[in-house]
Amino acid sequence: MALVVQKYGGSSVADAASVKRVAKRIAEAKRAGNDVVVVVSAMGDTTDELLDLAAQVTPLPPQRELDILLTAGERISMSLLAMAINNLGVKAKSFTGQQAGVITDAVYGKARIVDVVPARIRETLDRGQVAIVAGFQGVNVASNDVTTLGRGGSDTTAVAIAAGLSADVCEIYSDVDGVFTADPRIVPSARKIDRLTYEEMLELAASGAKILALRAVEYGRRYGVPIHVRSSFSNATGTMVAGTYGDLIDPNAPAHGQEADVEAPIISGVAHDRSEAKITVVGVPDVPGMAARIFEVVAAAGANIDMIVQNVSAAHTGLTDISFTLPEGDGPSTLAALKGVQAEIRYESLQFDDQIGKLSLVGAGMKTNPGVSARLFGALRDAGINIEMISTSEIRISVVTRADSLDEAVKAVHSAFGLDSNEGEAVVYAGTGR
Amino acid sequence: MALVVQKYGGSSVADAASVKRVAKRIAEAKRAGNDVVVVVSAMGDTTDELLDLAAQVTPLPPQRELDILLTAGERISMSLLAMAINNLGVKAKSFTGQQAGVITDAVYGKARIVDVVPARIRETLDRGQVAIVAGFQGVNVASNDVTTLGRGGSDTTAVAIAAGLSADVCEIYSDVDGVFTADPRIVPSARKIDRLTYEEMLELAASGAKILALRAVEYGRRYGVPIHVRSSFSNATGTMVAGTYGDLIDPNAPAHGQEADVEAPIISGVAHDRSEAKITVVGVPDVPGMAARIFEVVAAAGANIDMIVQNVSAAHTGLTDISFTLPEGDGPSTLAALKGVQAEIRYESLQFDDQIGKLSLVGAGMKTNPGVSARLFGALRDAGINIEMISTSEIRISVVTRADSLDEAVKAVHSAFGLDSNEGEAVVYAGTGR
Repeated sequence: MALVVQKYGGSSVADAASVKRVAKRIAEAKRAGNDVVVVVSAMGDTTDELLDLAAQVTPLPPQRELDILLTAGERISMSLLAMAINNLGVKAKSFTGQQAGVITDAVYGKARIVDVVPARIRETLDRGQVAIVAGFQGVNVASNDVTTLGRGGSDTTAVAIAAGLSADVCEIYSDVDGVFTADPRIVPSARKIDRLTYEEMLELAASGAKILALRAVEYGRRYGVPIHVRSSFSNATGTMVAGTYGDLIDPNAPAHGQEADVEAPIISGVAHDRSEAKITVVGVPDVPGMAARIFEVVAAAGANIDMIVQNVSAAHTGLTDISFTLPEGDGPSTLAALKGVQAEIRYESLQFDDQIGKLSLVGAGMKTNPGVSARLFGALRDAGINIEMISTSEIRISVVTRADSLDEAVKAVHSAFGLDSNEGEAVVYAGTGR
Repeated sequence: MALVVQKYGGSSVADAASVKRVAKRIAEAKRAGNDVVVVVSAMGDTTDELLDLAAQVTPLPPQRELDILLTAGERISMSLLAMAINNLGVKAKSFTGQQAGVITDAVYGKARIVDVVPARIRETLDRGQVAIVAGFQGVNVASNDVTTLGRGGSDTTAVAIAAGLSADVCEIYSDVDGVFTADPRIVPSARKIDRLTYEEMLELAASGAKILALRAVEYGRRYGVPIHVRSSFSNATGTMVAGTYGDLIDPNAPAHGQEADVEAPIISGVAHDRSEAKITVVGVPDVPGMAARIFEVVAAAGANIDMIVQNVSAAHTGLTDISFTLPEGDGPSTLAALKGVQAEIRYESLQFDDQIGKLSLVGAGMKTNPGVSARLFGALRDAGINIEMISTSEIRISVVTRADSLDEAVKAVHSAFGLDSNEGEAVVYAGTGR
């Protein structure tokens, strides 16, 4: 018998029939002898529909009210799911984020979980009942007001509840079988990965893999929650995210207890991301402090920047160009903020490019294999694809290309690293891109 | 400057455009210098849509979960309304029933308000802001779970909040101008009433007037909350419900303070109700205790019975028939309960009739005017309408007719008592019927 936290996304509970299907799965997990806690998102497009309603009322809704509005979505899905489970003869009760003890800070719209006090959930489990918890929401205890956690918040709720209950596993259900070596829609030969470390999953999630929210992976790593990414349409094992980079020192060490024995491929997989844009600040005086000032302004505008490239200053002009990538949606406000300091910084002009794509190669053994980047760049060159920016971490290399070359780039790299399914190398991907 | 509680029903906030229209009205009341608290129902048909979703998932939803589900409706309308008011430059905050301090018992689905502790509402008013409160819902503090108050619950919420805040007036907005002497769709010459006592309004609400929920009127009478029934589409004065029967001793006494000066017509108006059905228990042994036993069984089945008629026992059989009316929806469960005790009570058979209509003549001076019932029965006789049951109270006479004779009965009685609009007598109605 185990304590299992299951999370079902909006597409898994899109209508009454789906709710009943998911309820059956939950009842089976309970009847198999497990303690079961379920975290559920709003049904289908409910959240977008509520956002649309708000937009019809005002262009600038107060964030407190917007959070109250959006939490109606999970309120509907969680109570329907509890009803459907009860209808199968298994007792179930639903709880809002507040009732489940999900305590957050006061940042409406993208609150961070500061504590989980799942007393009512524990009590429900002790009575032999299934507890259903609304994802994506919590309570700011200082004001006793509801907060939302932002996109991907339900994954984070699930992992946080699992950590708070010391659950054996947190199962994240969606309509795909797990994490793949590349997006199967782009690379049909992509394969499902069996195991990943938190670090690899973090890099994949940060590089565009949408299958698991970055914050949820971070939370899982911090509290050591094993995360099982799997399909709600099958009973097949998905991808287990567990263990840390240090576990890879001996890749042949056997699994023991909940500690995952993680394979140590040189390359895990290829992620891609089409959601970023590039801003170039052209003709920046090459004097100390200018880059710092620029990124101060960008940070104040609220943009999360990703990659940064600064050209070597041309000797005869004393000017340099600074380029960075950021989520496309942050473009307009960031451009406006930079425009506001043009007189102060005395740069020449701004360029905005939303036709970029980012490819990321992720793998635990990358740092100790200098041949990896050479093979990556070679594959792109052979495919005739130009590289515009490069950034690296310990277990990732990312390159920016033209958006319309991205699919071809993913295929070329996936193949060059022997990740195609009949080549038999253990590998990983993620991410649906756009 | 006054403290005003306004209540808007679902049809007043059916879509984004309606929400904005209502917001404008609220902002005007605030800018006119009033403290404003708004109680709002779910948008349009939201509650029915949620009930339908639940029915798709299970025929027997647990009532706790159903209440959680239904409260999503007001969550949406209240936050949208707060956004729309803020958009007009007036600060507004929305509160759930729980946050507003609406404390109820634990009877899910039709909880009764046991206390109102509107600390957060008071604080919001003290800051010069408008408080929006979700109607129809409260919290069972013992379990910290949300409850709903049943149909008409938003009216009750509004009056309870008004009582808790000692508001100057509770304004109930709908799409009609006030309480009329009869349903204008049946009697085009019906007229709007300016003032009613709580007792008259209670009789009208209990007799089928849907414009104001019975429980809200009861609450208003208990706490002396003046209730102004008016249209959200005009600024015209509607119907003021205030003052008690005792005030009628001197009908010419001037108004003083909040105590309403109520006109004392002999007849207030004609209400009708098509929502009831009649059950007849045929051939009941005429021995002591049988009626008591029957109504014990009916009460245990949860039905609210209205009128009861027991025929004189036929001397040669020693058997009698007992008929009573009840909400049509309670029919099946009540019939099943009675069926279960047939062997014990030894009645002959049951009859169920859902084709009845009820007409009620309401007026403060009725008891002291014995001619009233004679004129009522005469009008129905002249119109060729058969009376099946009769019941009376101090200020009401009700008769049951065939459902398809009801409109004609209402017209005949309205006319017989000189209520038609060019006859210049002050009168009252209510109710939309079905």
